[in-house]
Amino acid sequence: MNKFDLSLYLVTDQSLSKGRSHEYIVEEAVKGGVTMVQLREKDISSREFYELAKALKLVLKPLNIPLIINDRLDIALAVDADGLHIGQSDLPYSIARKLLGKDKIIGLSVETIEQAREVNNVDVDYIGLSPVFSTNTKLDINTPLELSGIKEIAGFTKHKTVAIGGINSLNAESVIASGADGIAVVSAIVSQENPQEAAFNLKTIIRKAR
Amino acid sequence: MNKFDLSLYLVTDQSLSKGRSHEYIVEEAVKGGVTMVQLREKDISSREFYELAKALKLVLKPLNIPLIINDRLDIALAVDADGLHIGQSDLPYSIARKLLGKDKIIGLSVETIEQAREVNNVDVDYIGLSPVFSTNTKLDINTPLELSGIKEIAGFTKHKTVAIGGINSLNAESVIASGADGIAVVSAIVSQENPQEAAFNLKTIIRKAR
Repeated sequence: MNKFDLSLYLVTDQSLSKGRSHEYIVEEAVKGGVTMVQLREKDISSREFYELAKALKLVLKPLNIPLIINDRLDIALAVDADGLHIGQSDLPYSIARKLLGKDKIIGLSVETIEQAREVNNVDVDYIGLSPVFSTNTKLDINTPLELSGIKEIAGFTKHKTVAIGGINSLNAESVIASGADGIAVVSAIVSQENPQEAAFNLKTIIRKAR
Repeated sequence: MNKFDLSLYLVTDQSLSKGRSHEYIVEEAVKGGVTMVQLREKDISSREFYELAKALKLVLKPLNIPLIINDRLDIALAVDADGLHIGQSDLPYSIARKLLGKDKIIGLSVETIEQAREVNNVDVDYIGLSPVFSTNTKLDINTPLELSGIKEIAGFTKHKTVAIGGINSLNAESVIASGADGIAVVSAIVSQENPQEAAFNLKTIIRKAR
């Protein structure tokens, strides 16, 4: 099992970063306390994705913060990222594990309580609970799990959990109090005027909620 | 070096296949004489891409026709495809070769005579000359190479060449006569009422042009 800290998991989104580079956002966010970073890009070329991943690895490697690639296993392999995050419409988990090997972190999104039960006997490194609340970041979202869903899944899952979707400084405490091991955020960091301060505030809330 | 025959190279495009499945089109096209198949998809999920690739592999493997995946090295690895085709905005060739190993076919698109010169000392398995003519299939095309460009590249390249872009039964002969080792087509097969007959006709033209 790979060691990592899901507490405050930053998921990138260039379109929400107000023109600031990934490197800038990520560097600031890590100074503020982000513990993991996921590079998620949908409408760029493979070459651009690769270049971005390489740049983020240069930032994160010296800081010992894991870089996780969303969906694109080829990009994860190409830059020797720390892991891969896959959703229900990405490559099957068994294939991803076979190609990445057991030393890489693989996270899997579950969108329903049923899906959380199904993966309970699969050796994923963590599960993403998605979405907790409704959000404008992703267009293809399911019905929100809400805090009650987080609580229910946290009650039976054997996996580490990170909740995502509409989490911000106002509701972060309630998500952690519901049993999630961490929160993943996009706009609550990347769209803020001061990403470092935003991360620091979220991290403080997480600490207090535990 | 891997053995393969570039003569008549089918590139898929679901949006141009008039509602018929990839399996149907590919099976018919191979009966007509297609010698290689490239699965190229841009706006589908990784899971769908994987499922399509798996289905095509089942069709092509028993027929000994190489299945080449466009751009997505992870899909090529996931289904153990025969090779990968990359363009100038995909993963760098050196990374692709490292991850796929020397036993897989890797083709690289070149869009200018300059690019064809640059890859002359790189150990790609073939180069795609793209586009020969103007076409509506790809939106991001460069200036067409025209027959004069094919002739010039064929004159100096050490690589096998396949020409693509706007090739049909009316101009296929001139492309082969200009020195290309093969032609790659999309709509000239996938959009035809009878893909098998369309492939057979193109194959006949190629044979006569040599």
